[in-house]
Amino acid sequence: MNDVYVIGVGMTRFAKHADRDVVSLGTEAVRAAIKDANLDPRRIEAAYCGHVFQGMAAGQRVLAQVGLAGIPLANVENACSSGATAIREAYLAIRAQECEVVLAFGMEHLTSKFKGALTPDEDDPEAAVGLTMPGVYAMRARRYMEEYGTTREQLALIPVKNRAHAALNPLAQFQDRIAVKQVLESRPIADPLRLLDCSPISDGAAAVIVTSDAAARRLGGGRAIRLAASSLRTGSVEPEPTSMSFEPLTHATARDAYERAGIAPEEVGFAEVHDCFSIAEALRVEGLGLFGRGEYLLAVERGDASLGGRMPVNPSGGLLGKGHPLGATGVAQVVELVRQLRGEGAERQIENATVGLAHCRGGKAAGVDGAACTVQILTR
Amino acid sequence: MNDVYVIGVGMTRFAKHADRDVVSLGTEAVRAAIKDANLDPRRIEAAYCGHVFQGMAAGQRVLAQVGLAGIPLANVENACSSGATAIREAYLAIRAQECEVVLAFGMEHLTSKFKGALTPDEDDPEAAVGLTMPGVYAMRARRYMEEYGTTREQLALIPVKNRAHAALNPLAQFQDRIAVKQVLESRPIADPLRLLDCSPISDGAAAVIVTSDAAARRLGGGRAIRLAASSLRTGSVEPEPTSMSFEPLTHATARDAYERAGIAPEEVGFAEVHDCFSIAEALRVEGLGLFGRGEYLLAVERGDASLGGRMPVNPSGGLLGKGHPLGATGVAQVVELVRQLRGEGAERQIENATVGLAHCRGGKAAGVDGAACTVQILTR
Repeated sequence: MNDVYVIGVGMTRFAKHADRDVVSLGTEAVRAAIKDANLDPRRIEAAYCGHVFQGMAAGQRVLAQVGLAGIPLANVENACSSGATAIREAYLAIRAQECEVVLAFGMEHLTSKFKGALTPDEDDPEAAVGLTMPGVYAMRARRYMEEYGTTREQLALIPVKNRAHAALNPLAQFQDRIAVKQVLESRPIADPLRLLDCSPISDGAAAVIVTSDAAARRLGGGRAIRLAASSLRTGSVEPEPTSMSFEPLTHATARDAYERAGIAPEEVGFAEVHDCFSIAEALRVEGLGLFGRGEYLLAVERGDASLGGRMPVNPSGGLLGKGHPLGATGVAQVVELVRQLRGEGAERQIENATVGLAHCRGGKAAGVDGAACTVQILTR
Repeated sequence: MNDVYVIGVGMTRFAKHADRDVVSLGTEAVRAAIKDANLDPRRIEAAYCGHVFQGMAAGQRVLAQVGLAGIPLANVENACSSGATAIREAYLAIRAQECEVVLAFGMEHLTSKFKGALTPDEDDPEAAVGLTMPGVYAMRARRYMEEYGTTREQLALIPVKNRAHAALNPLAQFQDRIAVKQVLESRPIADPLRLLDCSPISDGAAAVIVTSDAAARRLGGGRAIRLAASSLRTGSVEPEPTSMSFEPLTHATARDAYERAGIAPEEVGFAEVHDCFSIAEALRVEGLGLFGRGEYLLAVERGDASLGGRMPVNPSGGLLGKGHPLGATGVAQVVELVRQLRGEGAERQIENATVGLAHCRGGKAAGVDGAACTVQILTR
């Protein structure tokens, strides 16, 4: 069985790219990853593309642009975990000794597909009774605050932190810091959540080059980062609405990843997690076992989860600060992990970064039937 | 490295299922495959779902119905090769020794997504100049007939043959035989192709249970069929419009599959190929090396490609006769191969079936940038 490494990473800026299309964004990210790896692109043997709304055979159009038409490619979709799933499939292709060098990329041009916010399918029975994404996360925020005696102001510290991180990331959609007051005064979306508690509509793409250990030694230029686990679970282990303040699916996926990587939660030094809403970050890091249940908002208040803190969460800015082009999100998380583990985090560099974790959770927020979750662990 | 086997197959009838939805079809096919394998469903460790138009996290909704929420699932999309790609990813997961028992299924409910024929994307530049699927295949038919001196009547023998096969398949969309005259008198679509030269709009689903060799010995009940190769290529090796009568992408994918399986084209006993249009079947079998270039229509005329002939092509009825619910198609081909190789072909049984080949080709017909091709070889 081959061990798996990442030898190249690249991404576009996340933003509303009104003047670009998804193929142009995907191509930019793939070229950046190839350049970062200093790789002859003809060594790439297969590719996986994660996206949600970009139509038929979208990944193939990017391959043609970079001169790689001909190799195997599969488009993969797992809602907001699509990009991470592309990396997981690349990981499996290498573990299968089918390939030594695989490209995984994710991309999304949301602004050309939606006018404003994403809307649920017309025939979605949960959305029809108000269980839209903001609706469900609003209930979970309410329950969390009730259960643990935390405040709306404390919840606002999550977007404040992530926007501060994003302000240090030139590829983030938002470049300005915000204050608690701005969060609380932003437009109400689903009480108690307000606009600045919600991740934005974004366009963007990200790419990674994944290899076997042998290829990493040959091609990695001493900068290869180990992809120690790439775990995927779907559905829910138990119906999440019965435990609104905890994430059993995240917990189960993380347990699998820790076991495969031989890493304990205490050894994780920093994490990129799926903060689609402010409250989501708290639910995720607690589900991952990185913080105790009900303790995260206090930890954020102490600065533990900020750059320079004990356990930085979303150093890239996260979905709230960096942006959330669905298919690109999971790949961009791994891009950030690799940059940090290489010591290329620039103004965002985490000291002595050796173990990083990336988490995505996609699909339906309430039901048991439409969710996908990924946890990836990278080590230096 | 694990060898890979198929231990269970199932499918719905292909038809216009106005009273069903895609989850109901997918669930029926998955349950049928589990039952066929006589398998405790809790042994299934991961799943792949191929579909094109069924929306976000569609595969997960089927897993929830069959009580398998929780396991890893990736939805995969490669246009008309989506279902075959799901099988390929299952094959890789087993080769990677990540799993021993994997479910691969494909499904599509086209009639709820399109009113009548599939329409190209509005921003598709090829379609905008008339290079729709029927347009491109019409040109290829014209070129083929010109190059090899074959006739329109001979071309009609392909749908006539496939509808005759479908009439023996209770799960086929069409149950009636047709005559050459009916093909020639059917509604013109893109000259010289007529309605009965074109595969129909269909709803349906198909599923297979794929395992390691060890699991096949333990669970296969002596009926396991080897998946000896599962090859995927995308784009085009050369731009296909410069060689209208030949399929370089099919050829390259097949070469890879033959090599992996250690099987020569001459050893293949029967094939399910992607006859989205009558002419497509000729292009595919010649690209696969199963018939000489320009020789296929004469072979069909002699009965070589019919059940009972030297080398039956599309014994299930193919896309023209069985129907073409995009994501389900590639999986249904493998279902037919397995049934034939087990000797469970009933009225369609091919004598001494030992090596079967399945071929899909999806995506853009003309361009180099949007195509995907799969070739799978199964052996008894």
